[in-house]
Amino acid sequence: MKLASLNDGSRDGQLVLVSRDLAYYTQVSSIARTLQMALDRWDELAPHLAAVAESLEHGAVPRERFHEHDCLSPLPRAYQWADGSAYVNHVELVRRARGAELPQRFWTDPLMYQGGSDCFLAPRQPITLGDIAWGLDFEAEIAVITTDVPMVVTAEAALGHIALVMLVNDVSLRNLIPEELTKGFGFFQSKPSSAFSPVAVTPDELGPAWRDGRLHLTLRTFVNGDPFGRLDAGKDMTFSFGDLIAHAAKTRNLAAGSIIGSGTISNRDDQGGPGRPLAAGGRGYACIAEQRMVEIIRHGAAETPFMTAGDRIRIEIAAPDGHSLFGAIEQEIQLAG
Amino acid sequence: MKLASLNDGSRDGQLVLVSRDLAYYTQVSSIARTLQMALDRWDELAPHLAAVAESLEHGAVPRERFHEHDCLSPLPRAYQWADGSAYVNHVELVRRARGAELPQRFWTDPLMYQGGSDCFLAPRQPITLGDIAWGLDFEAEIAVITTDVPMVVTAEAALGHIALVMLVNDVSLRNLIPEELTKGFGFFQSKPSSAFSPVAVTPDELGPAWRDGRLHLTLRTFVNGDPFGRLDAGKDMTFSFGDLIAHAAKTRNLAAGSIIGSGTISNRDDQGGPGRPLAAGGRGYACIAEQRMVEIIRHGAAETPFMTAGDRIRIEIAAPDGHSLFGAIEQEIQLAG
Repeated sequence: MKLASLNDGSRDGQLVLVSRDLAYYTQVSSIARTLQMALDRWDELAPHLAAVAESLEHGAVPRERFHEHDCLSPLPRAYQWADGSAYVNHVELVRRARGAELPQRFWTDPLMYQGGSDCFLAPRQPITLGDIAWGLDFEAEIAVITTDVPMVVTAEAALGHIALVMLVNDVSLRNLIPEELTKGFGFFQSKPSSAFSPVAVTPDELGPAWRDGRLHLTLRTFVNGDPFGRLDAGKDMTFSFGDLIAHAAKTRNLAAGSIIGSGTISNRDDQGGPGRPLAAGGRGYACIAEQRMVEIIRHGAAETPFMTAGDRIRIEIAAPDGHSLFGAIEQEIQLAG
Repeated sequence: MKLASLNDGSRDGQLVLVSRDLAYYTQVSSIARTLQMALDRWDELAPHLAAVAESLEHGAVPRERFHEHDCLSPLPRAYQWADGSAYVNHVELVRRARGAELPQRFWTDPLMYQGGSDCFLAPRQPITLGDIAWGLDFEAEIAVITTDVPMVVTAEAALGHIALVMLVNDVSLRNLIPEELTKGFGFFQSKPSSAFSPVAVTPDELGPAWRDGRLHLTLRTFVNGDPFGRLDAGKDMTFSFGDLIAHAAKTRNLAAGSIIGSGTISNRDDQGGPGRPLAAGGRGYACIAEQRMVEIIRHGAAETPFMTAGDRIRIEIAAPDGHSLFGAIEQEIQLAG
């Protein structure tokens, strides 16, 4: 089934069920008013939601037209947003561009940072930037929402705690990152509010594309309407979502509604090198920084600029039948003040 | 006024008002069922809560005996927990103990990390430790809960967004920190769930002890019942809570219910050197690591062990009249499994 949180003026939005083709929605407030409330009692409520979802597909419940631009992020605010960096190719490129070695253990010990989760942007909400010099970039990723996860869960058992799958734009301020990371406490100012796809989807809805704790589908990115990346999200994902959840739960429980991100999707070139731009026949990129790093590695200097006022980013995954699976994240950059 | 969340079996607890002397509480469910609900509409609801608080002091509303051990953390789960490191003396000692210089900008640019906020421990709940070798330590701090804070707030205006003040035990796994920080993404596994004081208090309730965005009172720590620290929380706090909130809001809004921590309280010696232990006539410490660092600096090696199964930590602040202001955090360490 597919779930969304409609903007009804409240902080958490109104939970609705959305049809597979994203054409219709139906109210489920008698089951749960918000997505967090559904997640708090997921094992008990999910079967009721699934029954309504079936009725919605058959037109057997009252329904309204669904519009992606009416949505907040599925969890407009969350109790946890922990973002991994599972596509180690991305990490290797970042380091190569600045002449640093990738520590060997990065292939076995996931990178993960704790992100801010108090107010996510809506999927069509502009990104407000305080200063163009901060170097705004998008990062297209897959994320999952968990049920309650006990401390010291195995990677395999962790997969059973995935309630929903969605897309995320993990907005990054590239020019604030180097100085912030040298302070040693991780990202803070360099990671403003993220935005998630209009719709969150249960794993069973993804069929065979969801296997091994990975989503084996093509994610497309567009900058100002032009194709920028068409990445295989299932390829080059060194750590599965099971691995990432197990990493997050090593020393503590994770509460229902925790969001765990994959990190920026990144594919190697078919010849094993860094990925090429779309224009050069490659798969392109899920963030601007990676295109810039490849430019540095290949040509000695970055050419592609970061995003500025008026620029637009679009992130989407189409099902094999062509339908948008999660709806699109589509955001314009605007300057504050 | 003073607020607490009683453990009623729900995830968020039941919001109650507590009398100044922590002897009684009264129900406020007709105003707000949970503390987060009160914070979501704080400007509108706080006057109503304050009126009930006055009635409670005068015995003019139905009341029940208040027991600290019935409390969850005031926000049992929160949308944000961002912990600063405002007592730069603490940071300097950590670095000195390992022979590293303190970057000059650490005196002007606050350190802050994003903490996990999905499931806080209750103030009397045991800390479950997976492995004694992780090196469990407490960190006694002050924390504030904010209302909605706009991006790019000034430090002065930020003070007006502080709804509540409380204590926190920012549990740390010392032996996991060095390797985790070298990965560059900040704390994650090394910072399991924190615990907060039974009661959260509005700034006006603190009288003249709350000034300059700092709490000018003595915080006491006890390890296994023995006094370990009696620190002046208003002294040596390089950055005020206004500074810390402004730092957190530099690139994004903060939503109502965001918790901002001071970092481990740490006092210099009156002669300007690192603080001495209580037994040596000093003010002692708000974490074990600091006592160990001073041992390393003075004697070449750490002597005090980190905490192990059965050990107990108590953190409390008494008002000038001797009453416990926030109630006590009192936790025992237990091994998992």
